[in-house]
Amino acid sequence: MENNHTGLLYEFLIQLGVENNNEHLQYVIEISVFVTLICACIVLGHLLEETRWINESITALILGCCTGFVVLITTGWTSSHILEFNEELFFIYLLPPIIFNAGFQVKKKQFFQNFAAIMLYGIVGVFISFAIISAGCAFMFPKLNIGNLEMRDYLALGTIFSATDSVCTLQVLNQNDTPLLYSLVFGEGVVNDATSIVLFRAVQKFDITSMSSMTAVHILGDFLYLFFTSTVLGVSTGLLSAYIIKTLYFGRHSTDREIAIMALMAYLSYMIAELFYLSGILTVFFCGIVMSHYTWHNVTERSRVTTRHAFATMSFIAETFIFLYVGMDTLDANKWKTADTSASFCAFGVIMLLVFIGRAAFVFPLSALSNYARRTPGTKINARKQFIIWWAGLIRGAVSIALAFNQFTISGKTMNAENATVISSTIMMVLFSTVVFGIMTKPLIALILPHNLSYASENSETSSPKVEDLDTDIQNPFLANGEHEDGSVVVYGLLRRSSLSMLLHAPTSTIHKLWRYFDNSYMRPVFGGRGFVPCVPGSPSRGDVDGPLENPFIA
Amino acid sequence: MENNHTGLLYEFLIQLGVENNNEHLQYVIEISVFVTLICACIVLGHLLEETRWINESITALILGCCTGFVVLITTGWTSSHILEFNEELFFIYLLPPIIFNAGFQVKKKQFFQNFAAIMLYGIVGVFISFAIISAGCAFMFPKLNIGNLEMRDYLALGTIFSATDSVCTLQVLNQNDTPLLYSLVFGEGVVNDATSIVLFRAVQKFDITSMSSMTAVHILGDFLYLFFTSTVLGVSTGLLSAYIIKTLYFGRHSTDREIAIMALMAYLSYMIAELFYLSGILTVFFCGIVMSHYTWHNVTERSRVTTRHAFATMSFIAETFIFLYVGMDTLDANKWKTADTSASFCAFGVIMLLVFIGRAAFVFPLSALSNYARRTPGTKINARKQFIIWWAGLIRGAVSIALAFNQFTISGKTMNAENATVISSTIMMVLFSTVVFGIMTKPLIALILPHNLSYASENSETSSPKVEDLDTDIQNPFLANGEHEDGSVVVYGLLRRSSLSMLLHAPTSTIHKLWRYFDNSYMRPVFGGRGFVPCVPGSPSRGDVDGPLENPFIA
Repeated sequence: MENNHTGLLYEFLIQLGVENNNEHLQYVIEISVFVTLICACIVLGHLLEETRWINESITALILGCCTGFVVLITTGWTSSHILEFNEELFFIYLLPPIIFNAGFQVKKKQFFQNFAAIMLYGIVGVFISFAIISAGCAFMFPKLNIGNLEMRDYLALGTIFSATDSVCTLQVLNQNDTPLLYSLVFGEGVVNDATSIVLFRAVQKFDITSMSSMTAVHILGDFLYLFFTSTVLGVSTGLLSAYIIKTLYFGRHSTDREIAIMALMAYLSYMIAELFYLSGILTVFFCGIVMSHYTWHNVTERSRVTTRHAFATMSFIAETFIFLYVGMDTLDANKWKTADTSASFCAFGVIMLLVFIGRAAFVFPLSALSNYARRTPGTKINARKQFIIWWAGLIRGAVSIALAFNQFTISGKTMNAENATVISSTIMMVLFSTVVFGIMTKPLIALILPHNLSYASENSETSSPKVEDLDTDIQNPFLANGEHEDGSVVVYGLLRRSSLSMLLHAPTSTIHKLWRYFDNSYMRPVFGGRGFVPCVPGSPSRGDVDGPLENPFIA
Repeated sequence: MENNHTGLLYEFLIQLGVENNNEHLQYVIEISVFVTLICACIVLGHLLEETRWINESITALILGCCTGFVVLITTGWTSSHILEFNEELFFIYLLPPIIFNAGFQVKKKQFFQNFAAIMLYGIVGVFISFAIISAGCAFMFPKLNIGNLEMRDYLALGTIFSATDSVCTLQVLNQNDTPLLYSLVFGEGVVNDATSIVLFRAVQKFDITSMSSMTAVHILGDFLYLFFTSTVLGVSTGLLSAYIIKTLYFGRHSTDREIAIMALMAYLSYMIAELFYLSGILTVFFCGIVMSHYTWHNVTERSRVTTRHAFATMSFIAETFIFLYVGMDTLDANKWKTADTSASFCAFGVIMLLVFIGRAAFVFPLSALSNYARRTPGTKINARKQFIIWWAGLIRGAVSIALAFNQFTISGKTMNAENATVISSTIMMVLFSTVVFGIMTKPLIALILPHNLSYASENSETSSPKVEDLDTDIQNPFLANGEHEDGSVVVYGLLRRSSLSMLLHAPTSTIHKLWRYFDNSYMRPVFGGRGFVPCVPGSPSRGDVDGPLENPFIA
């Protein structure tokens, strides 16, 4: 993590009588500045939240820009960052907590009820968007004299700009008021992140010389293999953690150890996936889902509260850090000198247009397809909602930046004008979409769904929607994670009556019920979970192996 | 963090069809192995806890040794570690959470009531022990042909072996049953860590050529300056965090942001102290104390539970990591080849003897001094307790290792035989004292204080003593942190009657009452704290500025 851009800060420290004899000090300065800035973001973001237009992400971006400007002046217009962008930092430390937390906090009932639609948007959608953006760039870039990139670079651009950033948008959507919209946008965001990264790796690996009609099939095969193995790994790790805590710690709970095991095993699942070149993101996301479904119910009440909030806090800090960095990077003089400024603006325009088209090309057709399968009128995705889904996915964020740096730079530096142009336009795209679209989203939703915003703003008086919602979860653990209190006896009866006819009429709902039956009969007795762990810690009788179907809340 | 010792692991991965084309993979392997080992330690430690002889520290050490042995075999007897020892890793990432948590979880009433005794042991004691060990080493090493070190090295050895490791011992002492003993050993451990590091820095800075009678005075002056400035910095940061949360977040609480601010500001205090060459340890310790006294009471109930457990978990993971590393380092072939084995054993024997003598030389006289000031017979430190205090401080741990690596190696490697000898004997000392003394402590306490162990083992059935205790704190917030419900009206009345005569008769107790008066009248109205923050979040009326003395529990 070496850098040499903090010249004036150094001189300032020398004047204070502090020696500058080692790298250690550099490192300490970097960390101190970043920690101070994150603190400032949290405080400023909180103060500005009252205006209802700005959130922490935008604050972090703007604060990052300002800091970059200060650093730029103090270093004599040579560099704007304090910390070199480090892919390792991003993929090993910042991304895992964000994605794990997404899986851990997702409302599972909503997520799985809309599973088909989410997968359509998140997988098929990314493929469509990827094709349009790649083809569009390959067609437009040479025509507009932006530069001649390789085929592989165009394909990479397609994946880079297919990765949406839903974090920023979700801060204005309310999970209680618009559950369908929220779960669709949130679910898509997560699956989309994973798909983009998996697709990006497939593109990087794929051999340009042997391109044939089989290439697309090959990439798809790779993708499916990665998707499947990564999911299995994540689910297994989650189940293992549930089993360990249920078997070992039962009756002799130790809050700190339980929390440590959950956090470490989640992280381990990500690292093992990375080790075998799978998608750590998918792995840790599914690990989060499994942990919140089984493991979370096996631990003490204190562990539950702590994990909910500690994981959310880590994710929040990581996000703020990323936005700060992006803000700081905007003014990086080296990139602007190497890049052709007019070409950058041109590329930015082209990409923005392609992102608009690429997203429209899958949101509206796939929504129609999804509506076709939805029988009940209330659950259909109407035109207004489709527009919001389209809009909410236009923002590009940290994943795009990280992928762009990976493809077009060598450890954060680039000497090639064309690559520098692509990096500059990526940063412009992220900055513009986050700030402008981010600020516009709330008024826009108010315009399109007038009832919802008034509700959302009432809620935002006390706390942000996301946090508010988790709080309800904890206050009422038996309704947590969006499941009913109906028990499984009913399900069992229904299944015996006419499972085949039901499967034909309402496939999703029947699959959900089949799953609940399987979960209650086989999974929960082994791995614990809500209703299968006695409430009193230390109770000697467990009795969760026999008769869980009779009354799960007594067992 | 480069290393080249995982040859066979690499070949294994190549056989699995995984490429080994970059440093990234190395890094991923290192992290995966360490995270897996920490998980194994937690699970094994929990299983072995039932035997009541072994704890997580010892498990981590032994597991580290075993892993080191495996690595040693796979790499063809060249190296035993997966990760190079990195001072930065230790001082920037692992130490701050451990020390902060110590300050955050300390029972403040006990700590401040025994403040004088703790400071005597922790500061005067370290100076005495430092003088004896330095002089002893300087006298014995040349006589036993262990090697001729410089004067500075002998002084460094004195500080290195004056740093006790109380973590391991505290796992067998019970805070509820032997509060006096616990607070003395725990308090001494923390102050001792800080003093040793400060003294070590003073020794490193000090100029050997201009040694005169003023040297000791100079070191003492340096020490006092560092102690004072570091404490002020820690207290200020803690108060700032309390003020920010009390002023900004009041009525619009956001659990995740509150937690983030507390964690980040604590870390920032450490980094700023390091930036200005102060003692980050002292700073973050006092920051922890202030945060648990003021900030912790200003946040939501959920933030309180989360911070208590999240900080404890981080500290626990960091400790386990350090013990794992020490275990792995034991078998490092490079050091054993460079070092003279018989000299190492000789040095180990000498150092052990000097540690025994050095500790006895201050524990017994200073206890007698402390007893002289204690009027009530029940609070006196009797001979049995003195013996346990002496014994509990014999274990050497991570701080000793870190300081030894800092003084005697260049980024973890040494080519000099004498330095390698010192490193080897340090590792032997840490390993031997942790494992042997660690295992002996519980039976020893049972022998000397028979009643206490029976009580402690009853408690350890359900959870470790430390955690159990925190739990009581949370269940009953108004009795938390060892304070009474008597209110301050009484204190105020007593003070008016005869403060001077009281000051003469019971100095500590009077200072404590004066502090309570000051705290209630001036500090809590500004910075919040127990009883000064309304229980209902979002309540518009605060009324904590006027009349806090009448009834603090209504305000």
